[in-house]
Amino acid sequence: MPKQYLNLRNLYFLLHEVHQASSLCKYAYYQDHNKETFNMVLDAAKSLADKHLHPYLTEMDRKAPRYEHGQIFVHPQVKNLMKLYGEGGWISATATYEEGGQQLPLIVSNLVGFIFGAANYSASVFPFLSTGASNLIRNFGKEELKKTFIPKMYTGEWQGTMALTEPQAGSSLSDVQTTAYPTATGHFLIKGQKIFISAGDHDAVENVVHLLLARIQGAPAGTKGISLFVVPKKRLENGQLVSNDVITAGMYHKMGYKGAPIAHLIFGEKEDCHGYLVGEPHKGLSYMFQMMNEARLAVGMSAVSIASAAYYASLEYAQERPQGRPLSAKNLAEPQIPIIEHFDVRRMLLFQKSVVEGSLSLLMQCSLYADLAKVSEGETKAEYELLLDLLTPVAKSYPSEMAILTTSAAIQCLGGYGFLEDFTPEQFFRDTRIHPIHEGTTGIQGLDLLGRKAMMQDGKAVVLFMTEIRKTLLAVPAVSRLRPRKHELAEASQYLQGITMHLADLAKEGQIEKCLADATLYLEYFGIIAIAWQWLVQGIAAEKALDNDNLSEEEYNFYQGKILTLHYFYEYELPKIKILHRRLESSNYLTVTMKSTYLV
Amino acid sequence: MPKQYLNLRNLYFLLHEVHQASSLCKYAYYQDHNKETFNMVLDAAKSLADKHLHPYLTEMDRKAPRYEHGQIFVHPQVKNLMKLYGEGGWISATATYEEGGQQLPLIVSNLVGFIFGAANYSASVFPFLSTGASNLIRNFGKEELKKTFIPKMYTGEWQGTMALTEPQAGSSLSDVQTTAYPTATGHFLIKGQKIFISAGDHDAVENVVHLLLARIQGAPAGTKGISLFVVPKKRLENGQLVSNDVITAGMYHKMGYKGAPIAHLIFGEKEDCHGYLVGEPHKGLSYMFQMMNEARLAVGMSAVSIASAAYYASLEYAQERPQGRPLSAKNLAEPQIPIIEHFDVRRMLLFQKSVVEGSLSLLMQCSLYADLAKVSEGETKAEYELLLDLLTPVAKSYPSEMAILTTSAAIQCLGGYGFLEDFTPEQFFRDTRIHPIHEGTTGIQGLDLLGRKAMMQDGKAVVLFMTEIRKTLLAVPAVSRLRPRKHELAEASQYLQGITMHLADLAKEGQIEKCLADATLYLEYFGIIAIAWQWLVQGIAAEKALDNDNLSEEEYNFYQGKILTLHYFYEYELPKIKILHRRLESSNYLTVTMKSTYLV
Repeated sequence: MPKQYLNLRNLYFLLHEVHQASSLCKYAYYQDHNKETFNMVLDAAKSLADKHLHPYLTEMDRKAPRYEHGQIFVHPQVKNLMKLYGEGGWISATATYEEGGQQLPLIVSNLVGFIFGAANYSASVFPFLSTGASNLIRNFGKEELKKTFIPKMYTGEWQGTMALTEPQAGSSLSDVQTTAYPTATGHFLIKGQKIFISAGDHDAVENVVHLLLARIQGAPAGTKGISLFVVPKKRLENGQLVSNDVITAGMYHKMGYKGAPIAHLIFGEKEDCHGYLVGEPHKGLSYMFQMMNEARLAVGMSAVSIASAAYYASLEYAQERPQGRPLSAKNLAEPQIPIIEHFDVRRMLLFQKSVVEGSLSLLMQCSLYADLAKVSEGETKAEYELLLDLLTPVAKSYPSEMAILTTSAAIQCLGGYGFLEDFTPEQFFRDTRIHPIHEGTTGIQGLDLLGRKAMMQDGKAVVLFMTEIRKTLLAVPAVSRLRPRKHELAEASQYLQGITMHLADLAKEGQIEKCLADATLYLEYFGIIAIAWQWLVQGIAAEKALDNDNLSEEEYNFYQGKILTLHYFYEYELPKIKILHRRLESSNYLTVTMKSTYLV
Repeated sequence: MPKQYLNLRNLYFLLHEVHQASSLCKYAYYQDHNKETFNMVLDAAKSLADKHLHPYLTEMDRKAPRYEHGQIFVHPQVKNLMKLYGEGGWISATATYEEGGQQLPLIVSNLVGFIFGAANYSASVFPFLSTGASNLIRNFGKEELKKTFIPKMYTGEWQGTMALTEPQAGSSLSDVQTTAYPTATGHFLIKGQKIFISAGDHDAVENVVHLLLARIQGAPAGTKGISLFVVPKKRLENGQLVSNDVITAGMYHKMGYKGAPIAHLIFGEKEDCHGYLVGEPHKGLSYMFQMMNEARLAVGMSAVSIASAAYYASLEYAQERPQGRPLSAKNLAEPQIPIIEHFDVRRMLLFQKSVVEGSLSLLMQCSLYADLAKVSEGETKAEYELLLDLLTPVAKSYPSEMAILTTSAAIQCLGGYGFLEDFTPEQFFRDTRIHPIHEGTTGIQGLDLLGRKAMMQDGKAVVLFMTEIRKTLLAVPAVSRLRPRKHELAEASQYLQGITMHLADLAKEGQIEKCLADATLYLEYFGIIAIAWQWLVQGIAAEKALDNDNLSEEEYNFYQGKILTLHYFYEYELPKIKILHRRLESSNYLTVTMKSTYLV
């Protein structure tokens, strides 16, 4: 097992030197926190992860959950973890003091998710799902629902889930058919099926609480007729937990992410499944999207966390494995050199580092917008929300898509050993493949970004994003080795603005199909620019730190590594936008005009 | 299990309409063959694959080989298959009539490999390894060795392997330490370890014959002191097979390609392992490279074959799965449409198709060069050999690297189901990940292409390649919808020539590190152009066929699909060379000048 799966020093750098997270503490809501308390949270999370998550990484993959007699049994360590997550306040950390939480900003709590995910992704999803589900009840539920469900979810005794997908409606939520029948006593009777429910059933908790989308009998078709319900596996009757007619019909066998059980559930087969309406009828999808947006950032974060673990596994190997000699070496009596000295291995490591640290910074930027939106008002609040809305599909998808490639690069660094189960990269490669799929596929994110986010309010969100980039460009000192990169980013963002206007014009002309045909490429384009931006932000901070002549060797190397990786990204990755631009400008809309029968 | 894993119609198209394989039959060596016999071979292979390989695809993955009591046990179907491979003459097909073969050209026999690989990659490697090993004995071994080993390998009773890699020497063959001690009776005593030996031991055969690299005691260091030996697991003594002191020390547990056993072997622990020298002492590596070059094409072919199976699995799903509605649809009462109607799904399918059919065509082109070299003489022969040498690393690596992405795209087409073991794409994604690693990693192929092949004879091979492209450009009719693509390919190949000269100049100036630092990117660049070339070749053939007004609908769609996929490749893939060009031209050699300590 590799020793390192993340670099805490980098988390401090991003949190304080890059994103100045403690500036949040000037707001009343966060006033009890400061730099030190933030660091203590990270250190405590790392300590928990070292002791209770990371040692079970491989074992939870090999000893996957079992489905027996209608119930799912998970690895025994999950039960210990649920207790630890509850006791440590990890599930409730972002809730208010009144609600039993710590009012922790997202920029810190999402880093906790990163730490847990890097240590053991499968083990990290249980608390996260409970947090998301309880947030929905907190924000939209009645007092009674809160009292009944939230405390047990915070202690880790009950598991929270989100139950959206149905067999006939994967990405198409407007086709949800699960039905809620009103009753005279206030609750609804739920009838339907849900598939792909993460942590949808397991034996490490005494109850499972589903936040479920269903259509109240007679509701309008489409997304406007969907309501949100709390549907527990067991309901309380006279202080006792009794069956609520939720059947675990099966468990999925997956290529990775094996430690977490994904269930197929049947609700109300005996007409006795009680559901409790959350908020107003027919508004369920808008509520769920609050959770979904948090979940999308969390997915991006999970992808980065796995990519981080893979990066350090391959870095460690490359530093230790002797193989071959320098290109110029002729003397075979000389010992072999560690493979990190080979340029191609360095390129593969820099690729990973650039994606991991660039994506992490972007996800923290998004978290910060969410934190600032929470404590702001009026126009300012609206602007932070717009930026967050715009960047959420990007921060979900760029890391998810790229982690396929970076974990693959980690495998490649290990050569033949990378293909073996004895080393961790192959598991990371399998685990991370879920991320471009769940919480909305990359294709769906592309449509969301281009068709909705970039177009809303006449493109206001993109204008705000450009302003954010401009602020960074202006922050590059007059004398700086980053100035050429500043100009490249300025040019790239002009390109992005240009292509956005071009695509918006197509939409305005009613050519919506041509506008959206390559929305996935637009998403990729946007992602590359967002990461280049975050690298320039990091470069400015690193250059500032390097002005100090008394840095220790370790600190010096850390900051030089930041500058080096920035250059890597601008040399190897950023130029890719030109090709995407060319394609998005092309008038050959072949995926629109083609016939499906040509695919044979 | 998806019904289709390849399209036989496409194989006929490539074989006859694109590469005119039957033109080989004018040479005496191939004179007994013709178009019909070639098709019969393909049909027979497909029939065998349908019946005996494809049905075991999933099962051989789940019931992987076991290592027990020092021996490896494979899936029972392997034993049946070895018999069928032997009886059908599949192992010996390319050998001469005198040697018991059918003098089948490589362009056909490699398609047989494609068919077997697409049906069940793990099951396809056993005969291929025996063919490679027996070829080495055929070409370089003494009569006695031939008589002893080849017939049993051709019947499938004995398994052939190639045993190169050692624990301390992965990609660095000059560090091979296995030693051969001469004896008075002619044989050598072998002592050493070999790792990662495909089919290195299993119970479906009665013996295993290793073609092994070792250093004769006292031989010079480096690659010039390596000799080739035949080392069987059991040797013949008085007509009996007795142990030859080859111990199976273990079996590797892999992320994919699970049906084939990969062994760790120890030779001569009891000082009783006999090895028989093949050819001259110290020339082993050059002999082995003959096998290796065939193996590299076979690896490319295997990658394409898996990518083909994944393409058809996702195509079938996309045609059948209803989900969502057209972008312009407002009426939710309308039924959902099959996802193949969504532009992003079409893009993912076209991506797969373009890589699969483009790569397959390139591999057939390489096979044809090998076939033509065999029957040519003098300068002509030398030119075919040069082209084959140049394109081998490209034809190995482009499909291997791209199959990671195309099988990933296949998963993505299936959404959540793509991540499940119930569907085949996840297995294809795992299986194909070996290809950028074995038979020389992509990094090694890049160094081979740029550092050796492109530079040898003052760049003659690249000049020949340009001439081949020019022939294709000239074959585009004066009136053709392919003319814009012709100009794009002409421009792209000029770019390639330019960057090759630039890099060669660096090498001539002694700046070999700067020349080779991004050799992997040069390899990718070369690959994209080679595939674009093969698409134009296919486009010309398809356009010609479309001139016929009496095509059936099925035929019409087939050829239109070719034209469409050509356009896809030129719109989405070919432009990527500009970015690679820009990078290869850059004077920022950061992987050369950086310090490894900056990677933290």
